[in-house]
Amino acid sequence: MRIVELPEILDALDEAAALVAVEEGFRRLHRGSAQLAEVGHLHFIDPPGDCHVKGGYFAGDDVFIFKFATSFYRNPEQGLSSSNGCMIVVSAKTGEQLAMLKDQGVLTDMRTAMAGTIAARAIVRPGSTVLGIVGTGIQAKMQGEMIARLLGLDEKLVYGRSAGKAAALAEELGGEAVDLAELCVRADLIVTTTPSTAPVLTAHMTRPGTRIIAVGADTPGKQELETLLTAKARLIVDSAVQCVHHGEAGWPIRTGLIAPDALVELGALLENPVAFADDEIVVADLTGVAVQDIAIAKTVWERLKG
Amino acid sequence: MRIVELPEILDALDEAAALVAVEEGFRRLHRGSAQLAEVGHLHFIDPPGDCHVKGGYFAGDDVFIFKFATSFYRNPEQGLSSSNGCMIVVSAKTGEQLAMLKDQGVLTDMRTAMAGTIAARAIVRPGSTVLGIVGTGIQAKMQGEMIARLLGLDEKLVYGRSAGKAAALAEELGGEAVDLAELCVRADLIVTTTPSTAPVLTAHMTRPGTRIIAVGADTPGKQELETLLTAKARLIVDSAVQCVHHGEAGWPIRTGLIAPDALVELGALLENPVAFADDEIVVADLTGVAVQDIAIAKTVWERLKG
Repeated sequence: MRIVELPEILDALDEAAALVAVEEGFRRLHRGSAQLAEVGHLHFIDPPGDCHVKGGYFAGDDVFIFKFATSFYRNPEQGLSSSNGCMIVVSAKTGEQLAMLKDQGVLTDMRTAMAGTIAARAIVRPGSTVLGIVGTGIQAKMQGEMIARLLGLDEKLVYGRSAGKAAALAEELGGEAVDLAELCVRADLIVTTTPSTAPVLTAHMTRPGTRIIAVGADTPGKQELETLLTAKARLIVDSAVQCVHHGEAGWPIRTGLIAPDALVELGALLENPVAFADDEIVVADLTGVAVQDIAIAKTVWERLKG
Repeated sequence: MRIVELPEILDALDEAAALVAVEEGFRRLHRGSAQLAEVGHLHFIDPPGDCHVKGGYFAGDDVFIFKFATSFYRNPEQGLSSSNGCMIVVSAKTGEQLAMLKDQGVLTDMRTAMAGTIAARAIVRPGSTVLGIVGTGIQAKMQGEMIARLLGLDEKLVYGRSAGKAAALAEELGGEAVDLAELCVRADLIVTTTPSTAPVLTAHMTRPGTRIIAVGADTPGKQELETLLTAKARLIVDSAVQCVHHGEAGWPIRTGLIAPDALVELGALLENPVAFADDEIVVADLTGVAVQDIAIAKTVWERLKG
């Protein structure tokens, strides 16, 4: 088994190829040619943290992937990254472990940003120029940078509960720190990246036509978007099962405001594009699906094995 | 992260300590002080194989464990072991990976044999002397050897569909290859270790008072014991949820012959021992639970880290 450290992984990672692979992963999920394992979760209380295990393979592939990723939120107090983890590449012919990609959670962060970018491309209103970024963590930075760059959204607005962090991120991204009300008025597309358990964006503050990429709700109990907002929006989800269980889309469904068949999976949307009305609010609810991990790990592994 | 190869793992493994730890793991599961992740499965068709991912931790521990284990049944045709896998030891304080135990599935095989031995000890009829072993694979050998040695069952009878393999295993264990009818008549305790999808032991051929350790049914569709047999037996299960889903105990429950509350978990039995009647048939249905993996990996890791 080859042990691959982060610098070598980053050398082998081609962003454009990985984006194509992740998008193709969502399409394959929709076409039924991805086999995914049940997602494993562990929660930790003291110190607080969680761990996700995801894995699977695409039909016909020679390899399958398992990854585990942890978040321990107080790690930065000790000078450590909150994210950790690795992806393991295994032969789908013999079960032998071929490689361990010690990505320390970076590939997970990247594939998450890529999913946001792919979803943004699929729902953005033509002519959009302003990206609103809610949150100041690693996903705020990565989604903000990648979506703005690849969709050509030149104005970047950042809102965070910490004014200092928001100002720092705005400076890093070449954008502007604003309050949430202003962000909602000016942004064409908003990406929400907080671990909030209480709604940040409300129906009242969200303009008609706003497109929202919501990536914060990855475990039960998290909610960034008010239920009245998701109840009236067009809902695109990375995985209907997961999003009903613990995504933003789950809130209006579990409270009976909308029916589960209102959800459209991202893979379905990519395969069968929809022209949304200009005044529709469209939300892409991204909880993270193993096809993203499989796709990015395979892209890296194919370059590494030469 | 320390990468630990198999010889070093075996050096660090103390069987007696691991048995105590695995038994304590079942007790902790019963007491509610084990947190386990959802089990992940993947199936492969060509070549046929499967992969299980299990993980979790005991309350208060500094580490958590994830393991994945694969079985590719045609590997031996290429001179490879059918089993593969590894266990990853992770800090429960920061999420940092501390060690990868490249056990190639051996720790899984061992913790499975240990669970069989622990269950056998809990249900064996006093005065038993004859162990029946159904199957000729790695678990037939490991369960047969360990149960016989630790319970002092001096007579070992082996039955397998392949007479040649049964004779070879009988010789290796210092036992006798017999037909299934004779095994059922003579054995006090029977361990069934086949991947069968059709019952091997029937109600008709099983004597009153027989104790059975069934370890073959680890995924949906497998069945070693006729449903009429499990329906009339006292049923001990390693995990009620798993056994109802895909264990031997699931067959009479899913067909409505018995109620789920008839099941007693092994951890409950260990905490509150039961004196079974001499003429009761008692079945321990073992599907494999992450507490076993956590326990054995922790035992190894504690010795390795010194």
